[in-house]
Amino acid sequence: MFAGVDIGGTKIEAAVVTSTMELVGSAYGATDITTPTTIVSGIAEALRAACASAGMTLATIKRIGVGVPGQVADGQVNLAVNLNLDHFPLAAAISDRVGVPCLLENDVRIAATGAWQYLWGNRSTGTLAYLNFGTGVSAGVVINGELYRGSHGMAGEIGHVIVEPDGDLCACGLRGCLETIASGAAVMRQIQSWGLEPLLLTYDSLPRTRNLYRAARDGHATAQALVRRISRAIATAVQWVVMAWDVEQVIFGGGLTRAGEGFLEAVRAELATLRTASHVAALMLPDDKFCLLPDGYNAGLWGAVRLASR
Amino acid sequence: MFAGVDIGGTKIEAAVVTSTMELVGSAYGATDITTPTTIVSGIAEALRAACASAGMTLATIKRIGVGVPGQVADGQVNLAVNLNLDHFPLAAAISDRVGVPCLLENDVRIAATGAWQYLWGNRSTGTLAYLNFGTGVSAGVVINGELYRGSHGMAGEIGHVIVEPDGDLCACGLRGCLETIASGAAVMRQIQSWGLEPLLLTYDSLPRTRNLYRAARDGHATAQALVRRISRAIATAVQWVVMAWDVEQVIFGGGLTRAGEGFLEAVRAELATLRTASHVAALMLPDDKFCLLPDGYNAGLWGAVRLASR
Repeated sequence: MFAGVDIGGTKIEAAVVTSTMELVGSAYGATDITTPTTIVSGIAEALRAACASAGMTLATIKRIGVGVPGQVADGQVNLAVNLNLDHFPLAAAISDRVGVPCLLENDVRIAATGAWQYLWGNRSTGTLAYLNFGTGVSAGVVINGELYRGSHGMAGEIGHVIVEPDGDLCACGLRGCLETIASGAAVMRQIQSWGLEPLLLTYDSLPRTRNLYRAARDGHATAQALVRRISRAIATAVQWVVMAWDVEQVIFGGGLTRAGEGFLEAVRAELATLRTASHVAALMLPDDKFCLLPDGYNAGLWGAVRLASR
Repeated sequence: MFAGVDIGGTKIEAAVVTSTMELVGSAYGATDITTPTTIVSGIAEALRAACASAGMTLATIKRIGVGVPGQVADGQVNLAVNLNLDHFPLAAAISDRVGVPCLLENDVRIAATGAWQYLWGNRSTGTLAYLNFGTGVSAGVVINGELYRGSHGMAGEIGHVIVEPDGDLCACGLRGCLETIASGAAVMRQIQSWGLEPLLLTYDSLPRTRNLYRAARDGHATAQALVRRISRAIATAVQWVVMAWDVEQVIFGGGLTRAGEGFLEAVRAELATLRTASHVAALMLPDDKFCLLPDGYNAGLWGAVRLASR
């Protein structure tokens, strides 16, 4: 048996699978980021509950895979702002607490392997890229079933590549980074600066990004223009990722994709413009190369059990 | 013994190496692109001459690696405009002609493996990218000593990614592609449209791109501005390649790099601007990550013998 844990800023999910990736138990709990110890306790509790739901104990678990929102190197987590963790040996801390070996990976990268699991299972050839548009923007690339990390574990850190020369100033210091347009925070900022908040509040009690796509679909011109701007930046990034890696499949994830088909159709519309102009784009950017995962599929959690089981 | 061949639009180079990559013979001849047969004859002749210079015959060669300027798939070469070849089974044609098995690869990708050979020899871990700024712009990526091709053999085809939204119209149909700014042809076109031809002709009988860099170094403001524009586009591409792949080393090649240090320093100056602005750029784009190969080193030819010997 193998276990996986997906740690978010508010929620911890755990699952137990067999060696053939059959789900036999799961559980979730709240993340308490007061101290590293409270986080580890929450993880241990979620793991115990997941085992209990499978009618077993932690003693039957061979290995645990853990996905965490932060930089990961050698079992240590760095700059996990949402978890209030920095330079913390999380893998060892979990392992010590529950008595089971633990493997740690960045949440977006592990979700990329979870996307592989969903699309291709045990296939061992091919390349996919998982592009996450959440608080930040980054990508995970899986080649022949194995996560590609690069020489410093930074492969896929595409949030700070420039898509708009001389564009808006990014927190990183550069101008026109992908994150200045297509991160969740940037979209919220643009909703405000474009004066779209009152419109979005007619849909919901909060100006959620998914309602920007709804307003665009409902024909509001400013919402449509902002969606086009965001989708164009994403299409530029997608074109780079596809041409650099020649991936077979691109999967979109992260908070911005909660707009579902609204998000996907807007990106596809920009890619269609590229395809109309260029035969290279037509060849490399066909509609069926791009997809979302189903709503109920937690790619981070499935990536975590996959990491544990291999 | 293994042999390698580098086929260019005007010149064919061949080399013979031992299994430990010791060079024992080499030769070159002219490319006659009249028909596929004249090309194959030229290759066979260069191979025979290279063997003769090593005091041996083709019978002692175990395998031949060949780099060719065009798309390559399954031993066939497509769209090799400079060689007047399309949909031609070049590997089989060479093999039939000289009686030795032959492996074919695109010239830029094979040069990437030649760059690996020069920098790292038999090392089997790490990632490098070879960026070619020639007639076209493309890249080869080598991971753990093996060329990465992607799902359609298109990995690294970065000439038509967009670096300048709404920029100049490219032959491919898109606007602002990297090739509209940084290919050899685009640089020549910009030299003309910027009115720099008369200035460059004071350096040479032809307005060669390397003299653009010389004129910039000599303080001519328009030449400096054009060099900055080109180098900025290259820096954007470099940033994408480094962030996407997290490569350990980036090697520049192709006609534009004949300007040598002038080319490299101009790109480094743009990367220094990014580093000053951003700590991510400072971390990921240090000066020593970028280099040229020595003038006398034919990366395409060494990649070809490497391909044959593995």
